[in-house]
Amino acid sequence: MSISRILIINRGEIAVRIIRTCKVMGIETVLAVSEADQESLGAKLADKTVVIGPAHAAKSYLNIPVIITSALAVEADAIHPGYGFLSEVPELAEACAENDLVYVGPKPDHIFKMGNKLVARSIAQECDVPVLPGSEKVSDYEEVIRMIEKIGLPVMLKAAAGGGGRGMKIVTDKEEVKTTFESASAEAKAAFGDSTMYIEKYIANARHIEVQVLGDKYGNVIHLGERDCSTQRRHQKLVEEAMAPIIPEKLRQDIRTAAVQLAESISYQNAGTVEFIVDQDEAKFYFLEMNTRIQVEHPVTEVITGVDLIQEQINVANGETLRYVQSDIDFSGHAIECRINAEAPMEGFRPTPGLITKWQMPQGPGVRVDTHCYQGYVVPVFYDSMIAKVIVHGRDRTHAIRRMLVALDEFSVEGISTTIPFLNQVLQDEDFINGDVNTRLLEKIMANNLELI
Amino acid sequence: MSISRILIINRGEIAVRIIRTCKVMGIETVLAVSEADQESLGAKLADKTVVIGPAHAAKSYLNIPVIITSALAVEADAIHPGYGFLSEVPELAEACAENDLVYVGPKPDHIFKMGNKLVARSIAQECDVPVLPGSEKVSDYEEVIRMIEKIGLPVMLKAAAGGGGRGMKIVTDKEEVKTTFESASAEAKAAFGDSTMYIEKYIANARHIEVQVLGDKYGNVIHLGERDCSTQRRHQKLVEEAMAPIIPEKLRQDIRTAAVQLAESISYQNAGTVEFIVDQDEAKFYFLEMNTRIQVEHPVTEVITGVDLIQEQINVANGETLRYVQSDIDFSGHAIECRINAEAPMEGFRPTPGLITKWQMPQGPGVRVDTHCYQGYVVPVFYDSMIAKVIVHGRDRTHAIRRMLVALDEFSVEGISTTIPFLNQVLQDEDFINGDVNTRLLEKIMANNLELI
Repeated sequence: MSISRILIINRGEIAVRIIRTCKVMGIETVLAVSEADQESLGAKLADKTVVIGPAHAAKSYLNIPVIITSALAVEADAIHPGYGFLSEVPELAEACAENDLVYVGPKPDHIFKMGNKLVARSIAQECDVPVLPGSEKVSDYEEVIRMIEKIGLPVMLKAAAGGGGRGMKIVTDKEEVKTTFESASAEAKAAFGDSTMYIEKYIANARHIEVQVLGDKYGNVIHLGERDCSTQRRHQKLVEEAMAPIIPEKLRQDIRTAAVQLAESISYQNAGTVEFIVDQDEAKFYFLEMNTRIQVEHPVTEVITGVDLIQEQINVANGETLRYVQSDIDFSGHAIECRINAEAPMEGFRPTPGLITKWQMPQGPGVRVDTHCYQGYVVPVFYDSMIAKVIVHGRDRTHAIRRMLVALDEFSVEGISTTIPFLNQVLQDEDFINGDVNTRLLEKIMANNLELI
Repeated sequence: MSISRILIINRGEIAVRIIRTCKVMGIETVLAVSEADQESLGAKLADKTVVIGPAHAAKSYLNIPVIITSALAVEADAIHPGYGFLSEVPELAEACAENDLVYVGPKPDHIFKMGNKLVARSIAQECDVPVLPGSEKVSDYEEVIRMIEKIGLPVMLKAAAGGGGRGMKIVTDKEEVKTTFESASAEAKAAFGDSTMYIEKYIANARHIEVQVLGDKYGNVIHLGERDCSTQRRHQKLVEEAMAPIIPEKLRQDIRTAAVQLAESISYQNAGTVEFIVDQDEAKFYFLEMNTRIQVEHPVTEVITGVDLIQEQINVANGETLRYVQSDIDFSGHAIECRINAEAPMEGFRPTPGLITKWQMPQGPGVRVDTHCYQGYVVPVFYDSMIAKVIVHGRDRTHAIRRMLVALDEFSVEGISTTIPFLNQVLQDEDFINGDVNTRLLEKIMANNLELI
């Protein structure tokens, strides 16, 4: 390993997660922190911290010049971007290359191609990976109407530069097209500085299934199975699982193969996730996008495969050959992850930053918690509200659900409201228990069960 | 499942461990607590607690009449004894049977036979499981001398009713025999109410390897692989691992087969552990004893097999068939457990009960902590000093050791001294890293490295 010191330019649980693997690998860690993050668990566990600016992310976690300067100042040989922030910004990967820093992620070109959803779509089409019926790009609402006449309603309007649900709108009625197009493109402009929109056929009874891939610089690509992330609220994943429940075995294998095909076609390096929409009624799948970074939900894959994905990211970034071939990857049992947010479910999921006065985490067989919080920690107001991920491993899905319910029950947080009671409802929902998860499940639970929380 | 409510008559981490599995199984838990244990994590997590007496174990955790009365009063249908205390007392299992309570453990007869080390020895001999050269029983020191003349020095004097190192003495010099015999039998009398002694050939370069078995009432017996528990201090295990490192594959399989053979020969039911001494120089193994209960170190087996041993105990106690056949049991990676004690290693391992003012546990991939402690908990003076078990899972032994070192490093306890710094030394010891573990390793580390702690 020629990497001996990594600058981690992220915060929250993913910073802690990366630090742990670096320690296991004997790599020194420097954590880049904003002024608001100096008391997080990551700051305590890292070998060293470097303050990169004020709380406001644009001036710290998104500030490429400051980050590169800091990396050189602390004599790091590599940068790990985590997820979010600069993790899919080709300019950071380029700046690393220019400064002789290893970027723990794919090549700038991979990030660029997959970051533009329209380019990604055409790459998928070139290697025969199915994409949703829809346009290449829509410049105005009239073009949207012409497309709707071709592919029918409902459709989804999406930002080409998008992600995380921003700039995404469903159109179910032709009368709405003009207003919806304008608000979505304005949202895209505000969020990504790019108002380019495209449309896709909207699948109502959809499942969101994604495949974890790993590639090295020698052209080797493997998959580590799929994750089902259909349990979403406003296009934000809340519950993720591996493997995907009740899916025809042929469809599962076809999706995995398609993901590897796509990654191979661009000689993808490092960890990536190929996302698909699965039409449950038709048993068909469509390429959605590829994320060129580690994902929040990566632990469910780690738990059922035994592979440390952060370690593999670092290894291949360091120029090593993948240590696994496809037949090395075995899947054992079922894993579920719940994202715990500092939010008040009863008050429209209003964020609830503040002092954690009690923090008693679940423990025991098959339970893993990834977090940057502790008793006495103040959740800052400046960032996203995720405070922990609870990951369980069971013999099968039923066992995993039972273990998750016990873990959520054991998780005792005081001082701030959390989404634990809401997740408890989700895990007890009959449709969820039956594996009948789709992207509309949470809306249903919100409507039916909120009074029980 | 006809069991719907279990009375757990134990304390510490094992109480918490049992509660967790009961919750996963949908079984109500009542925790029997002494007056000193009402604030433990187990007391908080159980559905209900029942105070069974004062701190002194003889009046609470060892008091069969009070325990049976309590079980009937709370309308439990089963009793789980955990380990230690009444877990190997046939009278408790008998009292359960008389009162229509399911005893989560083997039949009284199994406990009785294996509890008497001399009876156990002869059962092993009957089914061709090798035993150490030695006598059946020694009534006085002169008999010991005659035996020594037959089998040679060194020998080990052991209490027939023994366990946990009490009443065990090594004799290396004939001149010592009289004094040693008298003090060992007096110790046995004090500890077990039975001064019966036996002798065995003492293996200097020994490894302690034990096999986890599971049996049901239909005569099915399987093993779940072996654990290496050679890393001991004064006959107390401190570090345990699964599978056993650097052992010839044939020897490994022979030991496993011998364990199943022994358990089958007595139609053993429930979880049990068959312990062996392995003579490293000769590549031979000898039956030592069988523990007819769950063991402290059971998690390392759970981690590499994915089997919840407490759940299997409850299932077979409930009269169900074993859910696994031998070929279902796969072994994945390597697991290590460290027992964390409230003791001051620098002061001769003096117990350090008291208030825990900070308790920050390790977390993350491949890390499990079983504990009954939390920040603000007062470790009582009345019981053994184990406050947590850290269990790690790695791809291989080297990876597991690295993960354990990171976990120990992350474990931050204030208010009381712990053995964490000592364990840190053990895991960094060259012999340990090379897998050259034997029962004298810790004495060496104590002598060499104590100044570094």
